[in-house]
Amino acid sequence: MRVPQYVEGIRKGELKPRAELRTVRETASSALLDGGHNFGQIVAARGMEMAIAKTRRHDVAVVVLTNCDHTGRIGEYVVMAAEQGLMGLCVSSGSLPGGLVAPIGGAGRALGANPIAWGIPGGEGRPIFFDFATSVASAGKIHVAADKGEDIPEGWLLDKDGRPTTDPGQLSEGGVMLPFGGHKGYALSAMIEMVSGGLSGMGFPLQPGYEWEQAAVLMALRIEAFQPLDEFRRMISDFTKRLKETPRAPGCEEILLPGEPEWRSKEVREHTGIPLPEVTWRHLAETAKLLNVDWPEQ
Amino acid sequence: MRVPQYVEGIRKGELKPRAELRTVRETASSALLDGGHNFGQIVAARGMEMAIAKTRRHDVAVVVLTNCDHTGRIGEYVVMAAEQGLMGLCVSSGSLPGGLVAPIGGAGRALGANPIAWGIPGGEGRPIFFDFATSVASAGKIHVAADKGEDIPEGWLLDKDGRPTTDPGQLSEGGVMLPFGGHKGYALSAMIEMVSGGLSGMGFPLQPGYEWEQAAVLMALRIEAFQPLDEFRRMISDFTKRLKETPRAPGCEEILLPGEPEWRSKEVREHTGIPLPEVTWRHLAETAKLLNVDWPEQ
Repeated sequence: MRVPQYVEGIRKGELKPRAELRTVRETASSALLDGGHNFGQIVAARGMEMAIAKTRRHDVAVVVLTNCDHTGRIGEYVVMAAEQGLMGLCVSSGSLPGGLVAPIGGAGRALGANPIAWGIPGGEGRPIFFDFATSVASAGKIHVAADKGEDIPEGWLLDKDGRPTTDPGQLSEGGVMLPFGGHKGYALSAMIEMVSGGLSGMGFPLQPGYEWEQAAVLMALRIEAFQPLDEFRRMISDFTKRLKETPRAPGCEEILLPGEPEWRSKEVREHTGIPLPEVTWRHLAETAKLLNVDWPEQ
Repeated sequence: MRVPQYVEGIRKGELKPRAELRTVRETASSALLDGGHNFGQIVAARGMEMAIAKTRRHDVAVVVLTNCDHTGRIGEYVVMAAEQGLMGLCVSSGSLPGGLVAPIGGAGRALGANPIAWGIPGGEGRPIFFDFATSVASAGKIHVAADKGEDIPEGWLLDKDGRPTTDPGQLSEGGVMLPFGGHKGYALSAMIEMVSGGLSGMGFPLQPGYEWEQAAVLMALRIEAFQPLDEFRRMISDFTKRLKETPRAPGCEEILLPGEPEWRSKEVREHTGIPLPEVTWRHLAETAKLLNVDWPEQ
């Protein structure tokens, strides 16, 4: 879904795949990394590698990213840390100018979708992590619904006049997304905006002259600074088994851990492929044609 | 409201006001601090002081607390950091044995109320911070409603048979609290439980033999590792002014920042006193009598 957006960014010169990454400030436990408008995926992976390396001597490290393009799914970077026996935490900001999400009590755009991801090594098997937008739904999810021609639930979106709507297409027409979880979700979203926009120096979509780029704060923490890793894993394993045995509400088949649905989807899709909405496929085909890339007829 | 609980804890020997705090492990950027069952307020303040001191040389530090009694409002400790020009973050776990909060899809107790607090220096004036339980409402708030004889909104609590209830008294009768914000709030709650219970080595209320104590993870981050503090404050000031100017929804008088209602309450109550429910006053009077402490007639 994002490929046409990336290609357009490159053609406009806003996304710079050859840009060098530059370390603006660095200490033994921190760094400010300037992505030079390169792919966010590249910049964030490099940033988390730097944070992970710093924890070997300093237990905890924070790397802040500035001037990077769309980072994609930030859960990726906390899983990098968790796979090395560390705790990983990431928050990110950056939005269309003016923002996308209303504050509590507001009827206009102000905040970005400001995601947070957090992960730890699993007791057994894969890391346990979450990655969610602090809006009720991510902009990506609303665009997918629009692409599929589906309605969205009430409570996700207001139209450009501040009225509740179930039409996902209203997001491109000046609508405004709502924060998840009422005033708590709003507080989390506003804090991520200030911490990520402020520490990166990139500022805020609300400010005049703001240009779209993403900023992020990546943290890695060495679990063994506090507990032996084996013991930590054993405790997590025991906890998660018991959690999954909680009495279930009617209609619930299974208590799931954070990240469990995503790992299962990944496994299925690695075998059977990734289903794409018709309109996403068409946008990809159009982009391929634009670039004279061979594209299979459907 | 908590005083009778603290006094009872001391009388039973579970809360130990004379216990020495002991540093179990320590490096330049981390520490595991054993509170020896002393007041959580004492242990957490000491922990945050340690984290703040460590940031002077190492930019970022994490202190984990184990074996401390009730920490009270954890927003207190992130404000300590913010008042010194740092970012402060705190998560905490610990609950009645068995837990208090259901996972998504669950109808029984599993998780604690697992609060999170996060704060930064304000642009002007006081720090901007939030402090919330990852349950829809804190156990404290539900007990206050019970003390006042008020109903609670639907969606806060299930009774001991897993049915929705608006009677706050059901919490003491085996009821179960719900996480805020659906699956996102649940993911945050479960992660706080695992990180705080795991890094502290205290384990989880779900485990057999678990005894009530609180654990916490405190983090301090030096903003100047990334941006000059004056510049950061200037950016936050500009952002918050613009955020408060967002168009308002009908019925909303003012867009508030995280922590703003709490600072205003504090100011009012420093001048006019703290209103207490009748039943809280009575519990305090009973506790005073038990300890032969003079208590004003009402």
